[in-house]
Amino acid sequence: MKDTFYTYIQNLQDTITSKLEEVDGKATFQEDIWKRPEGGGGRTRVIENGGVFEKGGVNISAVHGALPQSMQTYFGVNDVDFFACGLSLVLHPRNPFVPTVHANWRYFEMYDKNGKIIDQWFGGGQDLTPYYLFDEDAVHFHKVCKMACDKHDGNLYSKYKEKCDEYFFNTHRNEARGVGGLFFDYCRPDETMSISDWYAFVIAIGNSFLNSYIPIVLKRKNLEYTQVHRDWQEIRRGRYVEFNLVHDKGTLFGLKTNGRIESILMSLPPHVQWRYDHHPDPGSEEDRLVKVLKEPRKWV
Amino acid sequence: MKDTFYTYIQNLQDTITSKLEEVDGKATFQEDIWKRPEGGGGRTRVIENGGVFEKGGVNISAVHGALPQSMQTYFGVNDVDFFACGLSLVLHPRNPFVPTVHANWRYFEMYDKNGKIIDQWFGGGQDLTPYYLFDEDAVHFHKVCKMACDKHDGNLYSKYKEKCDEYFFNTHRNEARGVGGLFFDYCRPDETMSISDWYAFVIAIGNSFLNSYIPIVLKRKNLEYTQVHRDWQEIRRGRYVEFNLVHDKGTLFGLKTNGRIESILMSLPPHVQWRYDHHPDPGSEEDRLVKVLKEPRKWV
Repeated sequence: MKDTFYTYIQNLQDTITSKLEEVDGKATFQEDIWKRPEGGGGRTRVIENGGVFEKGGVNISAVHGALPQSMQTYFGVNDVDFFACGLSLVLHPRNPFVPTVHANWRYFEMYDKNGKIIDQWFGGGQDLTPYYLFDEDAVHFHKVCKMACDKHDGNLYSKYKEKCDEYFFNTHRNEARGVGGLFFDYCRPDETMSISDWYAFVIAIGNSFLNSYIPIVLKRKNLEYTQVHRDWQEIRRGRYVEFNLVHDKGTLFGLKTNGRIESILMSLPPHVQWRYDHHPDPGSEEDRLVKVLKEPRKWV
Repeated sequence: MKDTFYTYIQNLQDTITSKLEEVDGKATFQEDIWKRPEGGGGRTRVIENGGVFEKGGVNISAVHGALPQSMQTYFGVNDVDFFACGLSLVLHPRNPFVPTVHANWRYFEMYDKNGKIIDQWFGGGQDLTPYYLFDEDAVHFHKVCKMACDKHDGNLYSKYKEKCDEYFFNTHRNEARGVGGLFFDYCRPDETMSISDWYAFVIAIGNSFLNSYIPIVLKRKNLEYTQVHRDWQEIRRGRYVEFNLVHDKGTLFGLKTNGRIESILMSLPPHVQWRYDHHPDPGSEEDRLVKVLKEPRKWV
């Protein structure tokens, strides 16, 4: 399974970066291959100062070796080896009317000292962070997520949609990071889903990504905007930074366990603002967005 | 002691904000008085878009009540009340040649159910974060810190200077936040220093603040700069955000225990950039700064 999934995300990275370059029309991805001293490495691809994408990364990695001590404690295990691979992407468009998107799909295995698999699971998800809210864009994104889930089980979408709303929540601001999407983790083989079933589920999600996001980009990328819109986007990006640095488990884990910093922090937006006690005008579009983020909605 | 110290920081806030307004010459501090539902409150003063200070805050607070559960766990105590007060300041100048400065001086008391003091201590410190390094500015800042410490004990400066280098360190970047200053905590009464001695020590530090920073501001505030200098300042401000949101205990404690978010996050810079894998040109002034931050120096 680990080889199958790693091959899948290698190809998916190619598919996604090619399409994004085509949509961008100006910049191309810069590729960095890196090695992890303890085993494994990754292929980081970053785009900057594009026609559409001000900054973004589509990264894959596959790492293995002895499970780091902090993770042994976290999982309550001793003396085990691991393998983990995944694709992570974050795209920060320049135009404030185009939402930021994030996605991550990953696979994890743990082994005993004889190399026997003692645990394995898939995890991941994707979420959309608009600066100006077009309801139809949120609906489109969620519809594509739901269609991909429904291929496998009619209950998965609402379950993982709720988990996404819970996870991508800036508790210290009492508001969601964005309009959500999917979030799932510890998807282990059980009586109803084999590990191959979970694989089929995850690749259906991964394959649907471009269709969930690109139509929104194409629809909004040429809308005219002013410095007012841009300032609001940069202020909201501040909330994105707050989530990633204060709450996001993946980011914090990477920072505290000697991960490749530049690959982890490619998720941070290019230009960001913090203003003291900033509140949008009541009744404005900016105000409407914040209100929606305070109480996550059902979009489909 | 709690009334004495709170009166002191109220007056110090006035002294510092008046002087900063005079130096700024354009903006004034906006004051917000806030109350903590569980007991106490604060007086937040923020300056934005000034002639010298692009953003800054000089805040005081005094809070009391039952010690929050997370802090009971942290201190290994049960069923105690507390009082805490302090002054916190962060100043982000517009001109990239003027360093950012941070300071905090605080006092803490814990009580048993009969209201008897069972523990008390002072803590605090100050540190300087230049974007372009003028060695003489770092030397000046440290000299003033040392003079204030030396009034009480010739050993305190080097002890607290080292603690500062340890504390304000972005471990995930393997570099210091800035050129340091002082950091001290749990300064409790013992055989050599009574709580009044510690009070005298802390107010000597507090009283020296303007003298440690203002001469540097006056010397650098009119230096001409270009967009290149400004970009570097904004990139380095990203490191400031990383420290405050990932490592700073005070910030994280505030965010996770329902503190007043806008008072806590006033420390975040107004305009910030993150670029992928950015490195200054070898041999440049920007490069020299990073090298110095990798191995904290003795400045006096």
